[in-house]
Amino acid sequence: NSYRIASIPGDGIGPEVVSATIQVIQKLAKTLGTFDIDFEHIPWGTEYYKQTGRYVSEDYLDSIRQYDAILFGAVGSPDVPDHISLWGLLLALRGPLQLYANVRPVRTFPGTKSPLNTATDGIDWMLVRENSEGEYAGQGGRSHVGQQWEAATEVALFTRVGIERIMRFAFETAQSRPRKLLTVVTKSNSMRNGMVLWDEVAASVAQDFADVKWDKMLVDAMTARMVAKPQSIDTVVGTNLHMDILSDLAAALAGSIGVAPSSNLDPTRKSPSIFEPVHGSAFDIIGKAVANPVATFWSAAEMLVWIGEKDAAAQLMGCVERVCAAGILTPDLGGSSDTQGVVDAVCLEVEKL
Amino acid sequence: NSYRIASIPGDGIGPEVVSATIQVIQKLAKTLGTFDIDFEHIPWGTEYYKQTGRYVSEDYLDSIRQYDAILFGAVGSPDVPDHISLWGLLLALRGPLQLYANVRPVRTFPGTKSPLNTATDGIDWMLVRENSEGEYAGQGGRSHVGQQWEAATEVALFTRVGIERIMRFAFETAQSRPRKLLTVVTKSNSMRNGMVLWDEVAASVAQDFADVKWDKMLVDAMTARMVAKPQSIDTVVGTNLHMDILSDLAAALAGSIGVAPSSNLDPTRKSPSIFEPVHGSAFDIIGKAVANPVATFWSAAEMLVWIGEKDAAAQLMGCVERVCAAGILTPDLGGSSDTQGVVDAVCLEVEKL
Ligand SMILES: CC(C)[C@H](C(=O)O)[C@@H](O)C(=O)O
Ligand SMILES: CC(C)[C@H](C(=O)O)[C@@H](O)C(=O)O
Repeated sequence: NSYRIASIPGDGIGPEVVSATIQVIQKLAKTLGTFDIDFEHIPWGTEYYKQTGRYVSEDYLDSIRQYDAILFGAVGSPDVPDHISLWGLLLALRGPLQLYANVRPVRTFPGTKSPLNTATDGIDWMLVRENSEGEYAGQGGRSHVGQQWEAATEVALFTRVGIERIMRFAFETAQSRPRKLLTVVTKSNSMRNGMVLWDEVAASVAQDFADVKWDKMLVDAMTARMVAKPQSIDTVVGTNLHMDILSDLAAALAGSIGVAPSSNLDPTRKSPSIFEPVHGSAFDIIGKAVANPVATFWSAAEMLVWIGEKDAAAQLMGCVERVCAAGILTPDLGGSSDTQGVVDAVCLEVEKL
Repeated sequence: NSYRIASIPGDGIGPEVVSATIQVIQKLAKTLGTFDIDFEHIPWGTEYYKQTGRYVSEDYLDSIRQYDAILFGAVGSPDVPDHISLWGLLLALRGPLQLYANVRPVRTFPGTKSPLNTATDGIDWMLVRENSEGEYAGQGGRSHVGQQWEAATEVALFTRVGIERIMRFAFETAQSRPRKLLTVVTKSNSMRNGMVLWDEVAASVAQDFADVKWDKMLVDAMTARMVAKPQSIDTVVGTNLHMDILSDLAAALAGSIGVAPSSNLDPTRKSPSIFEPVHGSAFDIIGKAVANPVATFWSAAEMLVWIGEKDAAAQLMGCVERVCAAGILTPDLGGSSDTQGVVDAVCLEVEKL
């Protein structure tokens, strides 16, 4: 079992957490001896943009398709407006590669603690985000720029195909979990078109999943439920923007955004999927060697599951959890270790496998 | 000082909390003797719709303009799709009356407690929501309905005028508070038109408020900040949808959505402003006589401030806080009182003034 992985470290602390993760994965591959994995460095990001005027190469979609998966760090730099950098790189991949399912497991991790007194037993949610359309369809414009009567639009575009495929994916995800609960998040009281279509598609897809218990929730009320009744939640599905917001909230409620992983999946497997930490480029701590690599470790474990190395992924997560439980943590989690300290500790655990 | 107030109890528990509030306000007016206030009942809502086919009367905008303010209960019924009822009544008022500033004070109230261990000193935020455009502009549509290739849009519309007026209002609000901090929430990394315009207008309006310390925050990251660093937040401004979401979250983090008030203001005072609890029609507890009236009391106090009875408002809030602090609370706050029990207790406090 041999895999070719594109590594796109990108900007900010991206290179730090990606290189930390590659060390750990290579140690794992060597120790287990059951697979090998080749990481090919791809230099896309803000430096590349400064040199070439583009965030990615001209044939980027073709060139990226040859890989089994993509390990992504972060994109965004204080030197470039965020909407340029993000649409230049990350959003230029998610939509065009039809990575329509963004999966974000959120749970209270060893070494972290939920700040909620309503969640003393911790949190264990699976968030499914539509990742190819909706509020991120990229449509809209500005007219009369600079005039007092300037008007601008942001157009959220929803298709029946787009909703149906993510809804089916979400019901299957819920079905695979012990509690088999799904909450469909919308805002169909104030948004009368695409959001009502979401409701209709949810009701129709639900008929194929009699064993999944599902409910609907407005996105505003959902935040209050996450705070007040975290145990009532299992799997959640929603639009690109709604789940962008709810997944950051979820990670914070579970204890830390520094451990939260994210998979951008093409469930049809025509395109390579992207695995990335939820945190961003975090320019405030760049170069200080304290970036928390756990979210990227966890993202890489999700990648291993996706490419077919489920056992290796479970072993890796076991090692990471033991290290975190032992208190070997970066400062954002209240620890005193640096990035390399966490890497070394995980590698030591891997050697014991 | 004589005021004419339109009372629109609406649906669900709306009539219960509005009638509770009218009792208390009338007692206050009688006790203080400094103003009087006439509440005129307006029957708009789902029953009205069932009888007339409309949620409001045909000349509703003209007829409502004769009042000094509007006390609103709730709208929404299990019998009617939410997008019909809300656009039929509440959203038919907010936009057309140009009630562009939705103001939502959020603080840990006597009798409530933040569920966050990061907020042991409680929460005290002022949320300002753009209330006339954006994601609630009402634009968009569906094509190829029912076909596999169906597509639907939700169009968020932003105008320079709309952004400028709410931004100015928010900076003034921040300026009037002791800490003078303002956070401008956007999502200008993924939304490149109206959201970038928000950023531009914020930077330009800020120049007129040198004494306000302001920062920008992406809506997703803002949720994490609200959870992890609640003390870092004072006044917040954002779009119609973003603040819809953040204000529910804020109320839950502060301790309860059952006490959260909301003012829909026309700062130019051409239209009467609407004062309403944040909670909705809550059909699950209708008729059980346990609806929490505190959010509507607080909304009415905001109304008194707005029409010019600042002292009366402060007296009222003092009474309500003493009652809550004494543990006379409805079941949603862990108490054992019913709605009328809370009303009677507040009226007793008012008598002592
Ligand atoms: C970086 C940004 C474009 C991105 C998003 O909004 O999707 C991020 O917040 C995320 O959640 O992956
Ligand atoms: C009832 C609904 C339309 C409304 C909104 O979304 O604005 C409510 O959630 C609110 O916050 O006032």
